[in-house]
Amino acid sequence: MSGHDNNGQPKDAEKPYLVVTMGDPCGIGPEIILKALQDESAVSAARLLVAGDEKHLRRVAREHKLRWPFTAVVKDPPDGKRWEKPQLLDLDNVEESLLPGQISVNGGRAAIDYIERAVEIAASGRAAGIVTAPIHKEALALAGCSEPGHTEMLGRLTGRKKVGMLFWAEEFAVGLLTTHMSLRDALRKVRKTRIVERLKLFDAEWRRFFGAAPRFGVAAVNPHAGEAGRFGIEEIQEIQPALEKARELGLRVDGPVPADSVFSMARDGRFDVVLAMYHDQATVPIKLLCRNRSVNVSVGLPFVRTSVDHGTAMDIAGKGTASADSMVQAIVVGARLARSTAAAAE
Amino acid sequence: MSGHDNNGQPKDAEKPYLVVTMGDPCGIGPEIILKALQDESAVSAARLLVAGDEKHLRRVAREHKLRWPFTAVVKDPPDGKRWEKPQLLDLDNVEESLLPGQISVNGGRAAIDYIERAVEIAASGRAAGIVTAPIHKEALALAGCSEPGHTEMLGRLTGRKKVGMLFWAEEFAVGLLTTHMSLRDALRKVRKTRIVERLKLFDAEWRRFFGAAPRFGVAAVNPHAGEAGRFGIEEIQEIQPALEKARELGLRVDGPVPADSVFSMARDGRFDVVLAMYHDQATVPIKLLCRNRSVNVSVGLPFVRTSVDHGTAMDIAGKGTASADSMVQAIVVGARLARSTAAAAE
Repeated sequence: MSGHDNNGQPKDAEKPYLVVTMGDPCGIGPEIILKALQDESAVSAARLLVAGDEKHLRRVAREHKLRWPFTAVVKDPPDGKRWEKPQLLDLDNVEESLLPGQISVNGGRAAIDYIERAVEIAASGRAAGIVTAPIHKEALALAGCSEPGHTEMLGRLTGRKKVGMLFWAEEFAVGLLTTHMSLRDALRKVRKTRIVERLKLFDAEWRRFFGAAPRFGVAAVNPHAGEAGRFGIEEIQEIQPALEKARELGLRVDGPVPADSVFSMARDGRFDVVLAMYHDQATVPIKLLCRNRSVNVSVGLPFVRTSVDHGTAMDIAGKGTASADSMVQAIVVGARLARSTAAAAE
Repeated sequence: MSGHDNNGQPKDAEKPYLVVTMGDPCGIGPEIILKALQDESAVSAARLLVAGDEKHLRRVAREHKLRWPFTAVVKDPPDGKRWEKPQLLDLDNVEESLLPGQISVNGGRAAIDYIERAVEIAASGRAAGIVTAPIHKEALALAGCSEPGHTEMLGRLTGRKKVGMLFWAEEFAVGLLTTHMSLRDALRKVRKTRIVERLKLFDAEWRRFFGAAPRFGVAAVNPHAGEAGRFGIEEIQEIQPALEKARELGLRVDGPVPADSVFSMARDGRFDVVLAMYHDQATVPIKLLCRNRSVNVSVGLPFVRTSVDHGTAMDIAGKGTASADSMVQAIVVGARLARSTAAAAE
């Protein structure tokens, strides 16, 4: 992958501006952000502004004896993108009574506030992208938001209808045909037009990121890729025609490849991007191969967006034992994508 | 896993008798059997009788300059289970004109012959189990056999209706709720009664293998285990009630666990057996984690049966480049299961 070689430390002038959202205050988001900001590879990769709550973060820092990593606390984003060292944008929206692990209206509402504020800053061009800490869907629902995840929410907030999710690992990336829905519903979405549309979206974004066309390995949905129609017809009726269409459009596509081969092939360097037909088809191999080293990337937004590869982990929130590895990776990869996007656009 | 520690070389008296089938003559079966029989760990693990074709195996041995590994070629299985070093049961059923990579009636028919003969020997108690080389479903179909794989064929030949498939790796095992069918059909089979029945089957077989109850991690079918019904109802309507029932029966079950967690948890030693809801849910992680080190085990048969974890690989047949690692593993694991079954029965 062309962009994956670009590992060196950026020159100061190239350091992108990123907004980091604090996520649900009752999850591990605040803790992993504070920990990630102690990590030189995260702090040196980008100019970071955290959208969060000062009092809450100070409580968490005190409790886990973490150094306060912010050089300034502001109520409005700094003018003209001028923040160098990490700053905190204090939304002052977390009630003191909230407990770690609690699922609450206030937690859900606060998490939404951070996202809305981060989108506002990035969409106006004051930051190149956003990095998100985990949110909790039940808390969101309590707060009146019915969207199942960041991807859908970000699509609405930016007015973009075609937003895709890419799991990013050092070895390869996996794009998703469908995200948060039942497997039954996902199967109904294995349709030629959707596959072509997603391939075009991931292709365009990859070119935007790296200035080169990705090599796609498109996963089959049925065992043994349906074995010539014996175990399912989606490969013949939908996936193959989609790949023919994609080839006509000049895309570099292979498939349908049996799901139990396509990820090894990608790991061996055969593909840049695997297109997975459903959520778990992507997440099972990614989480096994790249525990805490993979990052979620939203594509199709007007800015870069990366995210940790885990949830709020309510069960260990407040214990101080959460790993910030994925948050560090999300910041580093977000910065790298922001830089290469800028470079590819030149 | 209790049985997994039992790694030492068996004493001669404990060496089980195993019949190895040659598989489709046009695939890599003949080549990997000849190669596996050069491997001391395979040959020392068991008393091996290969059901195959002498002329064909001699051609393959000559072509790839492989030592002839058989001490005798027989037309009928040796009396009273008396074979010590590898012997060849020559069924003399392969036409000389067959080419590597060819899908043919003769290839399919020959592969069926080996299986039928191996089952006959094992079912009559003259061998403790069988180890199968890959067959090709299209060749089987040409030969008039409509069954999609070994598991179904072995069920019919032994009159066993409840035969299950287990993928076996050093780290853990994965049992399948469903095998060779479309994902759409597999979803329809995610039913309480079937889950309970499979758990009972795998539990009973595990106890038979190792004399102890396995700890099951039961995979969810929907993303995030359905997230309390938001992304699918199978977890609530079928899997949870099945697990309650299984617990009442005294089984050690956890779940439904999100599929993108359950395999890491098993790898970390939390479970002995993962119950996967569909074929690829099992094969994607197994093949990624254990390339060429995993073995398929049929459970519910009157004898032990193991198999390589790959197909006929028609594309590389005849080239001499096939790896025999999985065949060696299938023989070693087959022997180990045959020994521990015998020990657990004492």
